[in-house]
Formats: sequence, C-alpha cells, structure tokens
Amino acid sequence: MTYCVGIGVRDGLVMVADTRMSAGPDNLSTYRKLHVVGEPGERAIAVATAGNLAATQAVLGLLEEGLESPQSGHRETLFTVPSMFRAAQLIGHVIRQVRALDAEALDWARLSFDVSILLGGQIKGDSMRLFMVYPAGNFVESGRDSPFLQIGDHKYGKSVLARAITIGTDLYDALKIGMISMDDALRSNVEVGLPVDIAVLRRDTFDAELIYRIQPGEPYFHDLRERWGAALRAAHMNIPRPPYGSGRESTEGRQGQTGRYGSLTQF
Amino acid sequence: MTYCVGIGVRDGLVMVADTRMSAGPDNLSTYRKLHVVGEPGERAIAVATAGNLAATQAVLGLLEEGLESPQSGHRETLFTVPSMFRAAQLIGHVIRQVRALDAEALDWARLSFDVSILLGGQIKGDSMRLFMVYPAGNFVESGRDSPFLQIGDHKYGKSVLARAITIGTDLYDALKIGMISMDDALRSNVEVGLPVDIAVLRRDTFDAELIYRIQPGEPYFHDLRERWGAALRAAHMNIPRPPYGSGRESTEGRQGQTGRYGSLTQF
Repeated sequence: MTYCVGIGVRDGLVMVADTRMSAGPDNLSTYRKLHVVGEPGERAIAVATAGNLAATQAVLGLLEEGLESPQSGHRETLFTVPSMFRAAQLIGHVIRQVRALDAEALDWARLSFDVSILLGGQIKGDSMRLFMVYPAGNFVESGRDSPFLQIGDHKYGKSVLARAITIGTDLYDALKIGMISMDDALRSNVEVGLPVDIAVLRRDTFDAELIYRIQPGEPYFHDLRERWGAALRAAHMNIPRPPYGSGRESTEGRQGQTGRYGSLTQF
Repeated sequence: MTYCVGIGVRDGLVMVADTRMSAGPDNLSTYRKLHVVGEPGERAIAVATAGNLAATQAVLGLLEEGLESPQSGHRETLFTVPSMFRAAQLIGHVIRQVRALDAEALDWARLSFDVSILLGGQIKGDSMRLFMVYPAGNFVESGRDSPFLQIGDHKYGKSVLARAITIGTDLYDALKIGMISMDDALRSNVEVGLPVDIAVLRRDTFDAELIYRIQPGEPYFHDLRERWGAALRAAHMNIPRPPYGSGRESTEGRQGQTGRYGSLTQF
C-alpha cells in the first residue's frame, strides 16, 4: 500500500509520499515513490507513484527512456515535453504501453495492473499544474475548489486536507498539512511507512525549492505528530457533552415501558 | 454504504449508526440500521447492521423469529439467550442459515453475501460485551486495549476513535467522540447519511439509558459538527511551520546544481 498527496496552492505545489512497499504484511521494504526531475529556471516536475512495484518501475523506466513522438520522430521525456498537459499525456501513453505488454501475463497470474501517478510541476511558458493519471492512462487535474489529489490509501488522510486546504493556503502551511495528512495514514495503515519524501515547487521559479527525505526520528516531524495527536485528543474536550440521556424519559417510544421492548424488523 | 461504531467503556456501551441505504448514488433511501431490544432490568441488546439490505433484513427477520435450539428444542431469540456470547453465536448461526439459502442465487447474479453486525449489550448475570459478527458468521470481541469496533466505511472515522477513546473514557464523552467519528464519515462519503441513530446502555442497569434519532438540523449535532470542523482547521495552526526550505541549500543532492537533474529510476 501507499499514500501520496499533491497539493497545489496559489504559491506553488507540495508533494508528500511514503516509501513503504509491501508484498504482504510479512514482506515490507522501502522504495522511493516520489521523484523530482528538472532543469533550474526551465522546468521542475514531481512524479509520485502508487501500485504494484513491477508495474510502477516499468512505467518509470520507460518514461525515463522516453517515447518516440509520432509527430516529430524524437523521443519525448519529461525533459522535452513542452507543457504539463503533454507530460500527463506522455505518462498516460507510457502506462498504456506497459499495460499492453504486461496485462495478459498478469491476467494469467490473476494479478491486476494497477498504477496511479500524481504528476505536478511547471514548465517555463506554462502554468503550474497538478494531475492524477489512472491505470487506464486517462487523467484528471486538480482545481481551485479541490486543490489536492491523493493516490493509495487516501481515506485516513483526507479529513484534514478537505477541511484545512484552500487555494489560498500558504505554501509551507500546505506542506505542514500534507505531513499531518501523512501522519493520519501512517498511524492507521502499517503498509504506509517512513521515511517520507517531500518536495516543494514554488510557482514561477521553474525549480524545486525543497527535496527532502524525512527519516524516522526526525525532530520536526516527530514533534508535528505529537502535537497533532494531542490536538486531536484535546479538540473534543471543548465540545459540550451531548444534552441527551437525562434518564429514560429522553428515550423515544418507550417511556415508562415495562416488559419486553424493541423490534429488529422495524426499519 | 454504511458507518456504524460501537464503543465499550468502563461505564457502558455506546452505539452510533447512520441510516443511508444506497443502490448506487442515484438511488438513496433511509433505513434504520441500529435496533435495541430488551426488558428493563433484565437485558438490553443493541444490534447494528452493515451490508446488502436484502441480506441484513433477512438476517434480522430470522433473528426475530428465532432459531430452534438443538439442545432445548425451544426457539432462541435475543430475548431468550442466556449470555451475550450466546447472542453472538445465535447471530452467527442466523447469518449462516441465510447465506445457505441465498448464496447460490447471489453467485448467479454475481452479487456477494455481505452482512456485518455489531452486537453489544448486557444480560443479567453476565458482563457487558461488544462483538462484531462477520459475513461468515464468526465473530470477534472488543478488548480493553481496543474498546471500539466499526462496520461499514470505517476509515474516515477511525482517527479520532483511535486517539481519543480509552476504556476509562466517560460514557457521554464516548458518545460525543462516536458522533465526531460519524461526522468524519458523513463529510467524506455521501453513502453515509443522516438521520443518525444513537443508543447508550449503562453497565449493570440491564437497560437502555438512551435511544435517540438525530435528525438533520438537530441543534446539538449541528453545533458539534461546526465545532469539530473549526477545531480541525485550527489544530494545525498551533504547529510550527516546517523548518526546511530556506532556499535551495536545503535540498538534498543537488546543491548549486545547474543543468538537468533528477532521475525517475533511482528507487
């Protein structure tokens, strides 16, 4: 399992990805899932992957080699595509090529071809964009009203993103909230694990401002996890207790009832 | 989809269940999933269901009719079982009977038989217990270290339970935290919906202290949802921003780099 989140705010883009690879709970290992490539001042592109390791490595390998463009005859890679939209299309084509090669054999082994990719970044002359590419090679883009995208086990980490992230969120607050979201996934799913890779791409710099690996025990992330846990434990304290339940009077439909009550078949 | 949670603390038991029934996002309706039966001072038993509506109704219908006991020859129901463990076994038997009747036809229709049940309560002479019964009719019990059980879409609502609930949590704080957990599920999954049914069973009273339906717009739950959302939005504010990212110096492995950098195939 995996958890990766991309957040695109006014000032730039944040990507956060775990590194746990699991072939069953008794076979865990560590693999980088977040990659950043670029050329300072020209382009910065972050790619995060989720899915079967063989499939994602095949996709990234072919993407690094490049696909021959039917128009120009040149090999297209993330270093040559003229826009982020073309980058998303390129990744879609690569996924389809790998699937065409592997799908029949995977079917035979009763395995599914599952690769999901977050693609974010900016190329000079183009705007900053954030896409999620599906196993079928089609893709969606984040929007002003939904400025984040997730792949892998997205449910645990969604609450805080949905409530705290807006397009106007500060870039490093977005990073912080992405790391909190990762904490929620780390705590609940042992198939999501440290180290955690992060990247920050500031808009219109066409460069990665930060590429960093958070190791287990790293002081800031440790402190963030402690503070977030304490805040969650404390947050409900400030909510008054429910006003119901002042004895049996408040129960519905059985005031002063004696003898057997209740039915399993009144829906 | 469904979300139900049962929480067993020192002072008693709380059950919280939604009422949304969906046959696809274009076919939503409302059905009670939480039922409480009992006899004041003798027994109080709460049952919450998740899964296919036909299957859960068949299970509850047969459970209400009762199963003939091979030992005594009498019909056993939740009103006659001598202990909560026997209640869990009875529900398991009922699930297996319904599956034996339905499974072949469901296979033909390419549908699965999916019924999960939370069963909690107390019978005079027995302790208070909380079980989760699986579609195969086997079951697990909550424990001191894991004092809650969930059925349905459990992921969104798990964070706050895992962090805030202990065996020593006050009974009405447990209800409040159960309602917060329900709020997290309601916000993220449209197949979990209001009204929400709640029940509180205080230990050693052998009675339901509260059986209540929270309707849309109910002031306390509305206020709880607002306060919880505000607390989540605010909680991250008190965490300092990440200390990384003071320019490109802090990036790893590419200090002062010019030209193309990065690789998609270094894992």
